[in-house]
Amino acid sequence: MTPTPTADVLISEVGPRDGLQSVKSTMPTADKLRWIDALHAAGVREIEVASFVPAKLLPQMADAAEVVRHAITLPGLTVMALVPNRRGAEAALAAGVHKLTMPVSASAAHSLANVRKTREEMVEEVRAISELCRERAPHVKLEAGISTAFGCTLQGLVPEDEVIALAVQCVQAGADESGLSDTVGYANPAQVRRLFRRLRAELGEHAGAAHMHNTRGLGLANCLAAYEEGVRTFDASLGGLGGCPYAPGASGNVVTEDLVFMFEASGIGTGIDLQQLIAARAPLIAGLPGEPVYGMTPEAGLPKGFTPATRHV
Amino acid sequence: MTPTPTADVLISEVGPRDGLQSVKSTMPTADKLRWIDALHAAGVREIEVASFVPAKLLPQMADAAEVVRHAITLPGLTVMALVPNRRGAEAALAAGVHKLTMPVSASAAHSLANVRKTREEMVEEVRAISELCRERAPHVKLEAGISTAFGCTLQGLVPEDEVIALAVQCVQAGADESGLSDTVGYANPAQVRRLFRRLRAELGEHAGAAHMHNTRGLGLANCLAAYEEGVRTFDASLGGLGGCPYAPGASGNVVTEDLVFMFEASGIGTGIDLQQLIAARAPLIAGLPGEPVYGMTPEAGLPKGFTPATRHV
Repeated sequence: MTPTPTADVLISEVGPRDGLQSVKSTMPTADKLRWIDALHAAGVREIEVASFVPAKLLPQMADAAEVVRHAITLPGLTVMALVPNRRGAEAALAAGVHKLTMPVSASAAHSLANVRKTREEMVEEVRAISELCRERAPHVKLEAGISTAFGCTLQGLVPEDEVIALAVQCVQAGADESGLSDTVGYANPAQVRRLFRRLRAELGEHAGAAHMHNTRGLGLANCLAAYEEGVRTFDASLGGLGGCPYAPGASGNVVTEDLVFMFEASGIGTGIDLQQLIAARAPLIAGLPGEPVYGMTPEAGLPKGFTPATRHV
Repeated sequence: MTPTPTADVLISEVGPRDGLQSVKSTMPTADKLRWIDALHAAGVREIEVASFVPAKLLPQMADAAEVVRHAITLPGLTVMALVPNRRGAEAALAAGVHKLTMPVSASAAHSLANVRKTREEMVEEVRAISELCRERAPHVKLEAGISTAFGCTLQGLVPEDEVIALAVQCVQAGADESGLSDTVGYANPAQVRRLFRRLRAELGEHAGAAHMHNTRGLGLANCLAAYEEGVRTFDASLGGLGGCPYAPGASGNVVTEDLVFMFEASGIGTGIDLQQLIAARAPLIAGLPGEPVYGMTPEAGLPKGFTPATRHV
């Protein structure tokens, strides 16, 4: 494999939002900023840094605006925030985010449990927020993340036609991209290939990221399957922090360190320095004492003679 | 996916040999037999049940002949044993095994550490044991498992040309098949594809199993890559038991339960009933009190609405 001077895939780190939102304790703001700085220093170029939701619902995210205001000072970093509704989007835009992500559940049952809205109502939210962006911040990108796209702990199977139709509706409503999320860790490689193939056929350049979970150990295999279907943006969480508190039985974001190792070892550049990425666990651990972090590659260490795809100068 | 009445892939369970050999405590013979019975009842059709080595070196394997004599009574089961040399092969053949497997290390350093022989000496052992089989038990198959085929904790990189050449030499010396083992968990999907593609091009039907480790979390992704290159036999260990005690830093056989889940969920039949496979953990746990067992699928449970590829009647 020839080393790549630039990244072949984009690793979108979701830990500071998805991860922190899922743990009970609240990471102090100063630790969040140190953690984000360390991720950026390792070469991470997209981070979902916060969720703009009422602080009484998620006290872990009460400092969202402050975190965004810091993150946007880091050069070359795309700063994302999750927004469930227009009020959240207004606050996120005011803080200066580069990209908004909205969770739109393909499972009717999960949609109600997660955001207390039907799928149709969420598509209307996407439309409203898209219009808000066009008015106030036309440079800001809007992503609709189709959650429970591979199955749901509440309703079981989620028809693939409904998943694809919803992703298309979101883009038609103004989202710049729709990605697919395995919110509860039900996905398998064959299904990942089928759904991303259809998504890319329907949406072309508006097809978004793969957000895989490792709940049943298939996280990396599913990312590999998505890569082979042409997906080039992958969500992951440092130390595997997080899941979805509103989906019973859900756990286990894909571990960023293991995902980056898989790509780099395979000759696929991520732009990320693995040693520095592993070092970025220190502020995470310091900011969340007692919280378990995962990752096989950090535990085992890099192979002897390991040559990453990303050349660091 | 159409359910498959017969298996599309063969899962070769290595726990009773590879797993038990790696733990300090010795599982009582009665528990071993119960465990093997439970694996067979779940639909497992190939099991590496023992290692024929001096009992003073590996007391865990002192009952190898008794275990084999029981296992060969189970209908439809291929009973394998590991043999490092001619003396072990004689004992295994006398006990009535169906298949012998020999570890032949592609890393010169690991070969000396593991079996105290050079690679060339091991090829000569393969030749001697192949001749022994032809004389005494022509129906018995001989497999050469090329260990450290994807890298070595002692010497680092293992040249791919040397791996393939060694596999070819083993078949030329009389092995029925040569498979590739990621003994220390260094493999990545691109490398797995490259090496199995070459192996299959060189050896055709004599190309053997993929034996992957999950040391850095890539075990299932590597199995998927091997499957996509046409590999149809996969080694795995129930509960992820085992590794290689003579390769520093090695750990983590692929977990059979997670591997079977990946295939079954993807529409690829294993012939194995996942619920019964998970139930087969009970005799393993009972026979090795206090020993940790792994597996994401057993912990998370099967997805709601899960339909396996293997139809059980």
